[in-house]
Amino acid sequence: MGRVTRRVPRTRFDLREVPARVVTHPDTVVVEEPLQIRVDGVPVTTTMRTPGDDFDLALGHVLAEGLVGEPADVATMMHCTDLDADGRPTFNVVELTLRPGARLRREPVARTEVTSSACGICGKQSIDDALAEVGAGVHADETSLPAALLPGLTTALRERQTVFDRTGGLHAAALFGPPPDPACLVVREDVGRHNAVDKVIGWAARSARLPLTGHTLVVSSRAGFEIVQKAVAAGVPVVVAVGAATSLAVDLARESGLTLVGFARDTSVAAYTRPDRLTTLAR
Amino acid sequence: MGRVTRRVPRTRFDLREVPARVVTHPDTVVVEEPLQIRVDGVPVTTTMRTPGDDFDLALGHVLAEGLVGEPADVATMMHCTDLDADGRPTFNVVELTLRPGARLRREPVARTEVTSSACGICGKQSIDDALAEVGAGVHADETSLPAALLPGLTTALRERQTVFDRTGGLHAAALFGPPPDPACLVVREDVGRHNAVDKVIGWAARSARLPLTGHTLVVSSRAGFEIVQKAVAAGVPVVVAVGAATSLAVDLARESGLTLVGFARDTSVAAYTRPDRLTTLAR
Repeated sequence: MGRVTRRVPRTRFDLREVPARVVTHPDTVVVEEPLQIRVDGVPVTTTMRTPGDDFDLALGHVLAEGLVGEPADVATMMHCTDLDADGRPTFNVVELTLRPGARLRREPVARTEVTSSACGICGKQSIDDALAEVGAGVHADETSLPAALLPGLTTALRERQTVFDRTGGLHAAALFGPPPDPACLVVREDVGRHNAVDKVIGWAARSARLPLTGHTLVVSSRAGFEIVQKAVAAGVPVVVAVGAATSLAVDLARESGLTLVGFARDTSVAAYTRPDRLTTLAR
Repeated sequence: MGRVTRRVPRTRFDLREVPARVVTHPDTVVVEEPLQIRVDGVPVTTTMRTPGDDFDLALGHVLAEGLVGEPADVATMMHCTDLDADGRPTFNVVELTLRPGARLRREPVARTEVTSSACGICGKQSIDDALAEVGAGVHADETSLPAALLPGLTTALRERQTVFDRTGGLHAAALFGPPPDPACLVVREDVGRHNAVDKVIGWAARSARLPLTGHTLVVSSRAGFEIVQKAVAAGVPVVVAVGAATSLAVDLARESGLTLVGFARDTSVAAYTRPDRLTTLAR
């Protein structure tokens, strides 16, 4: 458990010479392993993830996906000690039990697996479903921060991506506290960008910080629908993506009142929604 | 249907001035919409995808995931003409019907959702499951090509990423024919990197090119487990990723006899598995 990287042999062809010079040497790759999350014995998902912070991932997932109403509904979390074919514990199952009286808020199937009514498969329905699960969104969050602060947040995330530096194969998410001086509270790396966000939200849940009023979530990747949906579920008013945003992410951000920033650069930042939370002041 | 990009307003803060200069202008984002795939009326998955080439995506998905044995098992493909809340057709459901006598090869749940026997959640089991679905893998494929050819393939992919150029928000996959002069046969872009590969495999299936003996699949992204699994299912012997590879992708490539190349650069390429298919000759 917890091995985040692994050494594998790699054969490199140096093309600056003809014939190419060939060297085989060990290379570091990021570990990808399945994790199954169970709630009271019922499997709710299996995700390909990088081992580590599995409890944060499990708790963050069930909260961010609206499967469980609040952190206090989860009474215990434990790793199953199942053995793999070689008789070693896999630590690839996390079992959550709910407190007496609590139960799953919907069927434990991924929303993407649900069959809907005839016309249900459209972006608007996806947005309506997401908002139904998370309530009113973050419209009322009165956070205001200088746009000029945001490049510093992406730099802080990049500087803390320690595993990425070794492998180049990881996404990352970071949570920053409220202004005027947003502190970097937690950084999580994972082979899956959704997992990195789940791990951050799970950490916040275990730290009794939900809802994340006034906080900013920074992701090293693009911002798609599911990233925004998880942020809204956690009550985050500002999401900053290093990459691009998708149409459905923009739509959900608008409907939920979230400030969605894409392509954060040193010299400029751009908000797709709710730019009124960003000021033009020096940081 | 088929709108690959959309214009949305974006508020840009130019941080080179204090106070920041603010301009709101239209920006192009990539469209993300759910697509549900049904086989004989049974929903097998819903994926967030970029509209377009939906039949390729649906056919490629059911083949690459081992849900359907061969392209000829699919008798018809059609878009449902369901209407959204505003009374417009969504084109977000593709319905496949199987020929008489054919049926789904396993339960229509994503493999990642399957609950397994107690010890089943481990990387080795994932590999065994994948290989059970695709058979012997590509061990016997005798393709041989100069390593020096590979940087040209990634360049060709990049040059054909037309939507990425406008949005910066898309993954891409390309299929190249056998050596000595690998032709670029098809390029597909999608907000989801797995969808891009499914679209390529679906195109190959509709073109009666499966299995893809001697072909090379190039992906603009990293190579994770599922990318390699789809390639093996389609019979592709060589996968080239612009980004990094994961541990489980390397393991599956080794077990299935696939040549997995990561970090393809102009001056060097590196194979994690089966480097014997690459020669040191000039291209």
